[in-house]
Amino acid sequence: MTDTQHAWIINHYAEGELKGTELEWVERPVPEPAEGEVLVKTLLLTLDPSNRVWLSEEEDYLPQLQIGDVMRGLVVGRVEASRHPGFAVGDHVFAALGWQEYALVQGDELSPAKGAVRFTPHPDIPLDAYVSALGLTGWTAYVGMKLIGQIKAGDQVLVSGAVGATGMMACQIARAAGARVVGIAGGAGKCELLVTELGMDGCIDYKASPDLAEAIAGQFPDGVDVFFDNVGGPMLDAALENMNIGGRLVISGAISQYQNYGDREALYGVKNTFMLASKRLRMEGFLVLDYLDRLEKILPEMEQWCLDGSLRYQNTEVQGLENAQDALPRLFSGDHVGKLVVRVA
Amino acid sequence: MTDTQHAWIINHYAEGELKGTELEWVERPVPEPAEGEVLVKTLLLTLDPSNRVWLSEEEDYLPQLQIGDVMRGLVVGRVEASRHPGFAVGDHVFAALGWQEYALVQGDELSPAKGAVRFTPHPDIPLDAYVSALGLTGWTAYVGMKLIGQIKAGDQVLVSGAVGATGMMACQIARAAGARVVGIAGGAGKCELLVTELGMDGCIDYKASPDLAEAIAGQFPDGVDVFFDNVGGPMLDAALENMNIGGRLVISGAISQYQNYGDREALYGVKNTFMLASKRLRMEGFLVLDYLDRLEKILPEMEQWCLDGSLRYQNTEVQGLENAQDALPRLFSGDHVGKLVVRVA
Repeated sequence: MTDTQHAWIINHYAEGELKGTELEWVERPVPEPAEGEVLVKTLLLTLDPSNRVWLSEEEDYLPQLQIGDVMRGLVVGRVEASRHPGFAVGDHVFAALGWQEYALVQGDELSPAKGAVRFTPHPDIPLDAYVSALGLTGWTAYVGMKLIGQIKAGDQVLVSGAVGATGMMACQIARAAGARVVGIAGGAGKCELLVTELGMDGCIDYKASPDLAEAIAGQFPDGVDVFFDNVGGPMLDAALENMNIGGRLVISGAISQYQNYGDREALYGVKNTFMLASKRLRMEGFLVLDYLDRLEKILPEMEQWCLDGSLRYQNTEVQGLENAQDALPRLFSGDHVGKLVVRVA
Repeated sequence: MTDTQHAWIINHYAEGELKGTELEWVERPVPEPAEGEVLVKTLLLTLDPSNRVWLSEEEDYLPQLQIGDVMRGLVVGRVEASRHPGFAVGDHVFAALGWQEYALVQGDELSPAKGAVRFTPHPDIPLDAYVSALGLTGWTAYVGMKLIGQIKAGDQVLVSGAVGATGMMACQIARAAGARVVGIAGGAGKCELLVTELGMDGCIDYKASPDLAEAIAGQFPDGVDVFFDNVGGPMLDAALENMNIGGRLVISGAISQYQNYGDREALYGVKNTFMLASKRLRMEGFLVLDYLDRLEKILPEMEQWCLDGSLRYQNTEVQGLENAQDALPRLFSGDHVGKLVVRVA
């Protein structure tokens, strides 16, 4: 173990498209754990759409990051030193350690937003599953599809961003529940992957569908019961047009709009919200962190799906923390499949 | 009883603003009830925002009206002749009899969209309460506030169209539940009525508030927990900006958008839907007809509120069925207070 480490700190807030100068690469000492603290080494760091939100000077569900703060990020790490009775050296944790090689955490909080959640990786499952299928991404898909979307066998399900990290999980969880699942993705290759590799019932290539609402109608002659939305904007509008009476719209994200935070003119206006009344729709956002008390039950169920092949994942891996800032725009360009992950150590 | 009656039938579908030629005034025979049928005389006809939707050539939650059909409408009527064991001459009913003086109904359906619901007016409550506070309007407010909005004591509640028929009821039901209630209405007179006469905690005159989001923020330093929306469009956007985490948006209607059905360009685009994810909001539409099985419990509770003064109503009454078409645009111009009702007999 070395005495110094690297970290990305906030240099200036982001506005519009990322410039790649928002974060600064710095060297700093590895801290010593005080009584009750745990030193965790970052193994894998996930790049998430919420990173873009955290980089904005806007209120969010988490405290505003300040200039000079270490960039916030979710990681899977390993305990290197512990002065907390609940954690031993070598334990694995989920935590929001940020974009740095080592971090101190207070170990007694359940929420990875505040502390660390200890877990024992299943011996037959690779560790990188725990940043995607079995990490916050997979839990988000589970909570959204099962608890918010109330998915059931026979439901007609549409998923936007279907080859993205969360979308891919959402599709498979709906399929495992006996639903008919059609995704929306950008490009023939992604659609091919969704249908052929992941066995979904169909895929709409939005780049080849000038009228998306019509394309959805073509795939759903009986309408849509559940729309799991990662994208927002025009896709949400097109889905609203095709919802069945009593349908549920699970708002997992709105990645098409994140770069427009703070620029009201650039935000897309959703025209079909009036349909909520006429079609008795429920449209609901959620934060997976509110459901962490269910994790103990959810995780073994999801591990089982990984083992029996009904939950498959694919990560796009970037090597080295120093390359994290350059990789971030790939979240928004669609230039990756599944979860975008940085291997730190 | 006469042999002939009057009715308004569909002459052409509505597009954009009402022209006043959509309906035609005709004379026709009073029908005879067959076995199992009931002849009902229309006493009071309500004018509702949904009338505008029914006049459009657009699919809705009810079957499309055809040219030549009697205009659909909700009434309180009295049984004039009965060949149904459940109904006696003199019984009062809620029913969707349409814009005519007499109509036949099959009496055995619970839903007023299909048949008639028999009720016994409380001797100390005027009959016209049963087309507003104790009719579909009041039930809509009850279902929206209590069952969808899950209102509870201490909630911060915002109601748009607060001096409209439904809004006025929604405000009072929230207040009776112990919430702090601020309405949005157009004009100082309406705001005065809401605060002074109905005892609400505040009112935002949107006509005097160039920045509505800011005006809402001024009235809600602690944010909004429940937004009961009758208006949609820019008001929905402004409310979204002020919602608290975990807030509920009850979509009762979108009257600002009804005249724009079928004209996509004219529809307002709601920019803040992306906040559903970041603030974990639930936005839900509903149809009161789905909850009619609860009416037996709801109605006595609401009658009690009428009697003890916690649920007050105000109708704007138009005299004579022949004046119904001319009165309809008043729903959209805001030129009335409370429920717009036609006294037919």
